[in-house]
Amino acid sequence: MSYQPHGQHLIAGERIGTEATWHSSPASGPAHAFSTGTPALVAQACAAAERAFWTFGHATRAERAALLHAIADAIEARGAEITDIGTRESGLPAARLEGERGRTTGQLRLFAEHILKGDYLDRRFDAALPDRQPPRPELRMMQRPIGPVAVFGASNFPLAFSVAGGDTAAALAAGCPVVVKGHSAHPGTGEIVADAIAEAVAGQGMDPGIFSLVQGGRRDVGEALVQDPRIRAVGFTGSLAGGRALFDLCARRPDPIPFFGELGSVNPMLLLPSAMAARGEAIAQGWAGSLSMGAGQFCTNPGIAVVIDGPEAEAFSATASAALGAVGPQVMLTDGIADAYRKGRDRVRGSAGVREVLTSVCDLRNATPYLYEVSGDDWLANHELGEEVFGPLGMIVRARDADQMLEIARALEGQLTCTLHLDEGDTALARQLMPVLERKAGRLLANGFPTGVEVCDAMVHGGPYPASTNFGATSVGTLSIRRFLRPVCYQNLPEALLPADLLG
Amino acid sequence: MSYQPHGQHLIAGERIGTEATWHSSPASGPAHAFSTGTPALVAQACAAAERAFWTFGHATRAERAALLHAIADAIEARGAEITDIGTRESGLPAARLEGERGRTTGQLRLFAEHILKGDYLDRRFDAALPDRQPPRPELRMMQRPIGPVAVFGASNFPLAFSVAGGDTAAALAAGCPVVVKGHSAHPGTGEIVADAIAEAVAGQGMDPGIFSLVQGGRRDVGEALVQDPRIRAVGFTGSLAGGRALFDLCARRPDPIPFFGELGSVNPMLLLPSAMAARGEAIAQGWAGSLSMGAGQFCTNPGIAVVIDGPEAEAFSATASAALGAVGPQVMLTDGIADAYRKGRDRVRGSAGVREVLTSVCDLRNATPYLYEVSGDDWLANHELGEEVFGPLGMIVRARDADQMLEIARALEGQLTCTLHLDEGDTALARQLMPVLERKAGRLLANGFPTGVEVCDAMVHGGPYPASTNFGATSVGTLSIRRFLRPVCYQNLPEALLPADLLG
Repeated sequence: MSYQPHGQHLIAGERIGTEATWHSSPASGPAHAFSTGTPALVAQACAAAERAFWTFGHATRAERAALLHAIADAIEARGAEITDIGTRESGLPAARLEGERGRTTGQLRLFAEHILKGDYLDRRFDAALPDRQPPRPELRMMQRPIGPVAVFGASNFPLAFSVAGGDTAAALAAGCPVVVKGHSAHPGTGEIVADAIAEAVAGQGMDPGIFSLVQGGRRDVGEALVQDPRIRAVGFTGSLAGGRALFDLCARRPDPIPFFGELGSVNPMLLLPSAMAARGEAIAQGWAGSLSMGAGQFCTNPGIAVVIDGPEAEAFSATASAALGAVGPQVMLTDGIADAYRKGRDRVRGSAGVREVLTSVCDLRNATPYLYEVSGDDWLANHELGEEVFGPLGMIVRARDADQMLEIARALEGQLTCTLHLDEGDTALARQLMPVLERKAGRLLANGFPTGVEVCDAMVHGGPYPASTNFGATSVGTLSIRRFLRPVCYQNLPEALLPADLLG
Repeated sequence: MSYQPHGQHLIAGERIGTEATWHSSPASGPAHAFSTGTPALVAQACAAAERAFWTFGHATRAERAALLHAIADAIEARGAEITDIGTRESGLPAARLEGERGRTTGQLRLFAEHILKGDYLDRRFDAALPDRQPPRPELRMMQRPIGPVAVFGASNFPLAFSVAGGDTAAALAAGCPVVVKGHSAHPGTGEIVADAIAEAVAGQGMDPGIFSLVQGGRRDVGEALVQDPRIRAVGFTGSLAGGRALFDLCARRPDPIPFFGELGSVNPMLLLPSAMAARGEAIAQGWAGSLSMGAGQFCTNPGIAVVIDGPEAEAFSATASAALGAVGPQVMLTDGIADAYRKGRDRVRGSAGVREVLTSVCDLRNATPYLYEVSGDDWLANHELGEEVFGPLGMIVRARDADQMLEIARALEGQLTCTLHLDEGDTALARQLMPVLERKAGRLLANGFPTGVEVCDAMVHGGPYPASTNFGATSVGTLSIRRFLRPVCYQNLPEALLPADLLG
């Protein structure tokens, strides 16, 4: 089966084409023409979303849960087509896209179950105290949806962080209509998923304005979307530069809105001495696998390994180099990402004190792993070495001793994850590191690798800037629904006017 | 007893004076000299707060609860002095300040009980699934304090929204050190409360950097505080212009931080026909009392009453005018606020279609009530008539009919509160209004007045911009602690490294 994109936008259930088009740049197969987005289309989608909120924002949790299951069903029904166009557009292997599809439908169904439980409503009740002086009125509180939400998908998860990804699932679960700005790296994959959502919305008899996809092709599409007065919040996964620009637009609005951006992270691993002595080479093997998996194109890719200098560091480096050297070239998601990868490599290898351990040829849209080493002193002296290079590029930082490892931890920027590899003998040092790392990252791991972000209740995918623009939020897991809610207090209202969820 | 201010800053437990001083401008009694704040003092306070966070951020909940109770005790011990200087500085009557002191110590104790319960930690646990493919690691999550917090108190609550007010109580309860920028309207009241906090901190054997008060006197003090790299969030109550300027500085930081500002609100009341027919005059009496209480200097002061035109509107207006006319002049909090009140009055009465119902002489630092009327058409045509005038100024908007009342509701800006006065016969119209008003305000009331903000679990003191800068948050009630927390996920960590709160 070969999917032929129709190339149109999907605005409130209707396919709309524009005269102006742009061409996709797939990893394999023919390019396709896609309608170019415009601010006028954005406005049309936002007006439909605003209109739909008056009903969808008051739909029952059961109705919203049914919609989420229907979307998952409609995506599953298009599984083969999605994998077909998705592999061509992204260069990701079929097995990966099939797994990601499962993750996508799984998280839609998880949110359906989550809202049915109702805990997320955070219902609070303070009874009236009529005899107190002054008397206390009856006060009830619950979380309500905020209104239309804009979503910008990620290049690296064309399904799970895109059109029907975590942001969309959380927003719809909350009761918020969604307007997606399509990612130019996978417009055909995006349009199938959008069609699936529209079919599900129609099947549930809901207002089609609940969902729109505006394809890109022009910079002002995204700018118009985050500045539209009807949009109440933005979910974004992408680059630091692009995310910060949109964050700034949100903050400068006459009425500022929250921008939930998940931006850059190098996800450092700290290898403590006992663990290094006992199993440094096994950790090196694991690291090489985690670092190069999917061409290293994960937000949680562990780009830095901090070790204490000495013979174990030497062996670690040699093992990691050998393992990474065995990884062949992998196709990257877009030409631009491949280009940025090589630029990042040039920046790293041109930095003072950086030694190239593993090099290779890396051209076209391909990535091969690189491995560099630097002393703790040189790393600390050069802030840029702490910045993300998106792709399979590893850096070993050789700290002089445990104190310098602590100093390096303190110098880290905000991260999605920090990882400790440790054995029992490392507990004392780990106890010194924990309070430092806790301030740096949204997720702390022991003896594992950060790639593989579980979608569950306890997950936190976020962290201090620049890992995310809101350190109080997560973009993965059930807690991510909180981004699209606001508390409302009902004082002394008759039952006839209270939301059903406050009466049940 | 007459309290003589020492006039110094309190930085991490030490009184520090500066050569430069400024003079307070009390409502009665002599002015006092206060040390002028500087960016260097701000930096010193922030450095101490950052240092203190390494211990205070890991203090047990019992230790933090004990601190909150000790602060409340120390404030109560200074009750007479606080009332003495507080009445002189603010012009508020003694009974009001005594009540506000009770509210202040009450909310400190409420937060102590709240953190002991532990629900706010939002602990989540996903068990390991070792046999799943791929295996799921063990994941635990809880909310952790964010780090040092800056607090800007309000002029109108020199105790409950100031040095030891709700923002400080919530931040300390969370485990965040606090740096307060003192309000120039009540510097002497502020310094006593700061001394009380410092005594409590010392008495608990805690790091004195947990708390600092930097007095003002220069605009760059507040600007330095919100831009200090150690500050992780800001709590602010004050004017729209001042709040927005600080919000913008927070958003433009290299690492943006959340600014929780509670800004302007006119708190409209909508009077539905059956209620108006049955008890319009009683509502008018109640409104006049709520509107003029404390010279109308409440964030939740109900400045606008929307009625449907006709004989009941006439009677409502006459009764409100008579009741307001009987209110004598009241001294305002500051010269600047009195001046702004008269400017607001001039703006309103110069607007097209506005009719003056009650006028009076209002000079010096005094306020007398004013009452105006305007048709629904004229109100809708002039966006400025929806802006807050801080003080006892009421506006009656005479809607043509129920449809125009709905149109007026839709045209409202974000509010802290919206109030319905209704009887059973009004249910159908109220059901049309509810979804509209819910999007406009953080708190909806029936048959009451919004002044009187209960400190409890279900309270929401916040709302869409400009009522607040973060519609997802409240600045009053136990939910306000969430502003100063961030979720952290612990993956596969040995028990020896987990926070005690995740083991209990």
